[in-house]
Amino acid sequence: MSQALRKTSHNRAHDPLAIATELAQRLATTANARDQAGGHAAQEREWIRDSGLLTLSIPTAYGGQGAEWTTVYQVIRILARADSALAHLFGFHHLQLAGIQLYGSAQQQRRFLTQTVEQNLFWGNALNPLDKRTLATDADYGFQLDGVKSFSSGSVGSDWLTISAWHEPTQSALIGVVPTRQLGVSVQADWDAFGQKQTDSGNVHFNQVSLPSTQVLQAPGVTPNAQASLRSQVAQLVMANLYLGIGEGAFEAARGYLAHEARPWFASGADAAGADPLVQHRFGQLWLKLRPASVLADQAAQELERVFRLGAAVTAQQRGELAVSVAEAKVLAHRAGVEVSSEIFELTGARSTSSKYGFDRYWRNARVHTLHDPVDYKIRDLGRYALDGTLPEPTAYS
Amino acid sequence: MSQALRKTSHNRAHDPLAIATELAQRLATTANARDQAGGHAAQEREWIRDSGLLTLSIPTAYGGQGAEWTTVYQVIRILARADSALAHLFGFHHLQLAGIQLYGSAQQQRRFLTQTVEQNLFWGNALNPLDKRTLATDADYGFQLDGVKSFSSGSVGSDWLTISAWHEPTQSALIGVVPTRQLGVSVQADWDAFGQKQTDSGNVHFNQVSLPSTQVLQAPGVTPNAQASLRSQVAQLVMANLYLGIGEGAFEAARGYLAHEARPWFASGADAAGADPLVQHRFGQLWLKLRPASVLADQAAQELERVFRLGAAVTAQQRGELAVSVAEAKVLAHRAGVEVSSEIFELTGARSTSSKYGFDRYWRNARVHTLHDPVDYKIRDLGRYALDGTLPEPTAYS
Amino acid sequence: MSQALRKTSHNRAHDPLAIATELAQRLATTANARDQAGGHAAQEREWIRDSGLLTLSIPTAYGGQGAEWTTVYQVIRILARADSALAHLFGFHHLQLAGIQLYGSAQQQRRFLTQTVEQNLFWGNALNPLDKRTLATDADYGFQLDGVKSFSSGSVGSDWLTISAWHEPTQSALIGVVPTRQLGVSVQADWDAFGQKQTDSGNVHFNQVSLPSTQVLQAPGVTPNAQASLRSQVAQLVMANLYLGIGEGAFEAARGYLAHEARPWFASGADAAGADPLVQHRFGQLWLKLRPASVLADQAAQELERVFRLGAAVTAQQRGELAVSVAEAKVLAHRAGVEVSSEIFELTGARSTSSKYGFDRYWRNARVHTLHDPVDYKIRDLGRYALDGTLPEPTAYS
Amino acid sequence: MSQALRKTSHNRAHDPLAIATELAQRLATTANARDQAGGHAAQEREWIRDSGLLTLSIPTAYGGQGAEWTTVYQVIRILARADSALAHLFGFHHLQLAGIQLYGSAQQQRRFLTQTVEQNLFWGNALNPLDKRTLATDADYGFQLDGVKSFSSGSVGSDWLTISAWHEPTQSALIGVVPTRQLGVSVQADWDAFGQKQTDSGNVHFNQVSLPSTQVLQAPGVTPNAQASLRSQVAQLVMANLYLGIGEGAFEAARGYLAHEARPWFASGADAAGADPLVQHRFGQLWLKLRPASVLADQAAQELERVFRLGAAVTAQQRGELAVSVAEAKVLAHRAGVEVSSEIFELTGARSTSSKYGFDRYWRNARVHTLHDPVDYKIRDLGRYALDGTLPEPTAYS
Repeated sequence: MSQALRKTSHNRAHDPLAIATELAQRLATTANARDQAGGHAAQEREWIRDSGLLTLSIPTAYGGQGAEWTTVYQVIRILARADSALAHLFGFHHLQLAGIQLYGSAQQQRRFLTQTVEQNLFWGNALNPLDKRTLATDADYGFQLDGVKSFSSGSVGSDWLTISAWHEPTQSALIGVVPTRQLGVSVQADWDAFGQKQTDSGNVHFNQVSLPSTQVLQAPGVTPNAQASLRSQVAQLVMANLYLGIGEGAFEAARGYLAHEARPWFASGADAAGADPLVQHRFGQLWLKLRPASVLADQAAQELERVFRLGAAVTAQQRGELAVSVAEAKVLAHRAGVEVSSEIFELTGARSTSSKYGFDRYWRNARVHTLHDPVDYKIRDLGRYALDGTLPEPTAYS
Repeated sequence: MSQALRKTSHNRAHDPLAIATELAQRLATTANARDQAGGHAAQEREWIRDSGLLTLSIPTAYGGQGAEWTTVYQVIRILARADSALAHLFGFHHLQLAGIQLYGSAQQQRRFLTQTVEQNLFWGNALNPLDKRTLATDADYGFQLDGVKSFSSGSVGSDWLTISAWHEPTQSALIGVVPTRQLGVSVQADWDAFGQKQTDSGNVHFNQVSLPSTQVLQAPGVTPNAQASLRSQVAQLVMANLYLGIGEGAFEAARGYLAHEARPWFASGADAAGADPLVQHRFGQLWLKLRPASVLADQAAQELERVFRLGAAVTAQQRGELAVSVAEAKVLAHRAGVEVSSEIFELTGARSTSSKYGFDRYWRNARVHTLHDPVDYKIRDLGRYALDGTLPEPTAYS
Repeated sequence: MSQALRKTSHNRAHDPLAIATELAQRLATTANARDQAGGHAAQEREWIRDSGLLTLSIPTAYGGQGAEWTTVYQVIRILARADSALAHLFGFHHLQLAGIQLYGSAQQQRRFLTQTVEQNLFWGNALNPLDKRTLATDADYGFQLDGVKSFSSGSVGSDWLTISAWHEPTQSALIGVVPTRQLGVSVQADWDAFGQKQTDSGNVHFNQVSLPSTQVLQAPGVTPNAQASLRSQVAQLVMANLYLGIGEGAFEAARGYLAHEARPWFASGADAAGADPLVQHRFGQLWLKLRPASVLADQAAQELERVFRLGAAVTAQQRGELAVSVAEAKVLAHRAGVEVSSEIFELTGARSTSSKYGFDRYWRNARVHTLHDPVDYKIRDLGRYALDGTLPEPTAYS
Repeated sequence: MSQALRKTSHNRAHDPLAIATELAQRLATTANARDQAGGHAAQEREWIRDSGLLTLSIPTAYGGQGAEWTTVYQVIRILARADSALAHLFGFHHLQLAGIQLYGSAQQQRRFLTQTVEQNLFWGNALNPLDKRTLATDADYGFQLDGVKSFSSGSVGSDWLTISAWHEPTQSALIGVVPTRQLGVSVQADWDAFGQKQTDSGNVHFNQVSLPSTQVLQAPGVTPNAQASLRSQVAQLVMANLYLGIGEGAFEAARGYLAHEARPWFASGADAAGADPLVQHRFGQLWLKLRPASVLADQAAQELERVFRLGAAVTAQQRGELAVSVAEAKVLAHRAGVEVSSEIFELTGARSTSSKYGFDRYWRNARVHTLHDPVDYKIRDLGRYALDGTLPEPTAYS
């Protein structure tokens, strides 16, 4: 492990970063094989559950570890270096918990977060506002849900889901929570993308599913306030750290290969691949893609932590400035993830493409996941802000 | 198919480009499935054989079609848009035939080229000078071959092979030809790279294989002259056209997807993905990677055709200037292939990553094949030339 | 001069390229000093006039040299390597002559082109359709012109001008020609940009200027046909060759400096700057910006020559496809000009910034001139074309 | 001023950042004119002196303001946005003061720093180890200096100079301080680069100049320890902040021009330049060059502050890790400065090239100053570090 990446390794017991490092090492041993196989990583999800890290972001008041977001994001990045699909499940679990804190009433927070701690629950996502095929119809107990929801990361194998559903009468979406094993909910494990294969991002089908009022986090017709709209920022920064972790994983793979397996090019005159000035220079270029992304992701996490703790007091301006910081970090991480995972091969060469290494998974994982929302619109948002201070419009993506 | 790419489609019977276009369409129907499966494409190799295109580059004097190199390279590019692995086999077949023309005696040319036409033979490659594990020892009939040769593209399923072997006494390599089914030759189908999967690039093992003098194209201890050293330029331009074909295939896939399946991003305000100015602009950027690569590859092919026909009269200066043109084309094609195949996804988005499309194969194929030799040394060679006119050193790679 | 650039040097008498090369050498001796001084290069304009090259593009039927556009553009590029401001004057002169051929009646062509040959006239530009401040009002003899026209390249010191003027009744622009010394025409030498200083791009003022009908090339209310609209393509390709010439001039300056004046960086271990692998590699990168731009500019010139000679028979499709080729060449030349002229300094280092070399003029000239119209809209046009074959809209800029 | 840049403005009295902001505004009013004129900015140097900021980095123990390096660098950046030549003088003044703290004995520190506070002295640089033309010969009082020293930033108009001189007997350089007005010292104002014109970077001539032992900061033959070798890191970070300030100044100029003067391109359909999606997107791209450079420069400044305060206890490892952080920041600032200052014109267009704006000065200043040492060797150093933890070799440049 290179000097700089080494800094984030930790060995202290009970330290979440140390636990994450150990878990990452365990995941790494089979990451290539599982990436090639795809499917549901039931055993590895249990390893995550057993690590105790599922309660990391839950406030101590509800029995959680009360970790800062900076720590949660570090854990995501550590896991993503080894296995970005499982890191994705972990990150999205905490995103659902953030949603409960941002949208839920005090009672709902107590109920669902306490229950999560007590039963060590794993949450999945079925909240995808661009997909309006799941409808909520009014019922005396609350709402009935019918339809399908795609791109539901972590749904397969989850205990509970956060869901969104379209409510025709108010022409708006509600947000709620349902147990995955509830009658009428079925999860279809049909995710077939060429990357992030084990993210359990199936389609969730709802057939006459009851959603009691007590499980509605945001009622239809309610415009989310600045606090609620922080959820998309938590989500965007989860992704930034996943992208970055992938890039760092690829970089570290290349570094190891250069140190131990690569041969110097015959025309270089160098006695080792790493002694070739053109190799050193290009490796420096890759480093310069990762480092700024890493520093800006860390700063954005600090800012998110600060703004998140403001609770209902957060203003639209604070929310908007955070969105700018998160967008900067996400664009840099996007580029670093996609570019580093492709360019490492210029240094490691033909023999490094053997399936036994599986080094292509970094690019495949980065490439698939970075398409969550178009990077060009993030860049446009930053340009608008730089031009006249216009803040990004609060949406599920910005 | 976009306007410009359409120009290269052809419909006239007996026109090699028309035949190639038809063959490409046939290969395209299963290209994604075969890419995912890997292995040996026995049936598809027969389609190539049946197309009559195996004799394309063979002079009419030996019964071949006597096509110009410009045509051979166009065919490679057309095939590579649909299936770069099979295009690779096709290109390397003609590379072996070029080698016979460049290295072989008049008698050898007559024998092997005539035989290729008569039996419609498919040639494979076992000439890899950086791998010195195959040894040639002197024998009264010529040489005995023992050892192994890696990265032997097209060896599995071939009829004849061009081989190189290290000759200890002269500390140099010989070049010769052997039938693939000869006693002692065994081809191991163990290519396991993450791209160009069906290139049959196995290891070839030689166990007491007899190489009669009549099959030695270049004897040990002989320094290749300028003509012989053109072989690496034929090879480099095969690769440039493969890379370019991959990039063009990816571009065309993206164009089709944008036209028929992509949805406009909600924040764009556009009523179709292709009407979004940011999509148009980025698509224009990709076009600007492909077009110069295409034009320079065509120019280099014309120059190669001209220099190739000079035969033994070619000078080191002519050979060197050709190498500069080929290097320019290859670097541009390298970048276009790798970058376009990765960047198309910024435009086609998350749903385009489904395995049913298999759009990742463009990047995987480009990424694996562009590692044949380090692009940074091509760029360095161009810099040296630009600085003071130094010509690239004639090697197996430049 | 490097190998490749050398190819375009010519030594044969009466050969326009040889004459241009000689003229360029003469301009080069004072180019740096004149660039720093700015103002009107009266003497140097006379050198151009004396060279005989002002009649280069005029058909032999009118006494001109009947050169192909490929030759005219080569001359522009040769001159631009040495002095892009004077090359600009030269290029814009031939642009005006092209306009007469494209818009003018047979009688007008005969009159103005013959006169240009006989009197060795130098033409300037006052045709700028985005500037509607010059008005044409109907008069019995034709039109009266009043107002001002900015960015009038070559107007100072010209003999005749091509002008555009806004005609209120038809809400359209007319195009005509006027002698620069005519009563009511005054040229204000107030061009103060930081580059292309000696392009005489002043404001032209019209005060009750008579424009007889015989001098109207395109009447108001007439929609230019495909032939007439070729003028903007002639103009765009003039610019592409100017940008490229600037880039080539900068490159050649760097090459010379590296060969004769630069010192190797102490940490490189190289015994000459040009022997440093990082210098060679970066120089190769610069070469790879120039070469494709050069090849595509040459191809576009061939296409323009072919389409131009179609005369009135040219179709909108042919015109549009030419516009695509020209746009490709112009974007590449734009980038090559701006980027190479800035990046050479990474190689030549601190001492090369002395005013005695004036190497900054390449960037200043490229930077100013490349702003004629926004490059991002060229790229968008190419993207549109690549997406669905949409041809660039015929305007004064595309 | 854009939102983000606005954050660094300050209005509190006695706050160095507020004072710097005010000083910058004053310098800005004539920055363009003085840039074009070049020469010595005597009056403006006095404004700096009068601001009280010359004592900013001097410890309070010697009567200075004891500011942290983070503050000093912020001041440099604020000044550089307005006038990078004067900011350079200011930054190099503090670099000399850092040198005294890093190399000088306790007695020397007390003497020279106290004197600087009491007399409000302005220091210049004549320490340039690659230029060995100034020789130190042994004398009974210390050394005699003879020769010339180039690239002596701030020498013209300075009160004292830090100097280096080559000592033949030990084949090493000594470092000392001399009053600029001392007998035998003459400063030649012959700096003629095309940028950073008013940096007073003349040649300093030494003719039998006496250097008493008490003014020798580092004796010949002494290898600088880790602490002493921090000087180059202070210097490199001065430059990074200058480059960044230039980039920020260019960006702010473009922002202002876009808001108040630019017209939308006719083909955009936008009603204001800033409403064009392609303008917004490109502006966002520029922002993404500046922001990471800014954040990494700030982090490096914090690290430098921390390491600087360790004094003699600093280890080679700490020094080396700081050098990595500084190198990262400097490369990013280098690129941001050069690229942003060139690319803004794609957005502001042709009219913005008028000399009345002088927007080219940003590129000229960035271009000249970024050539202090080759950026490719910084990138190589980073690559080496990333490969195996090799720390940058302590030199005057790394």
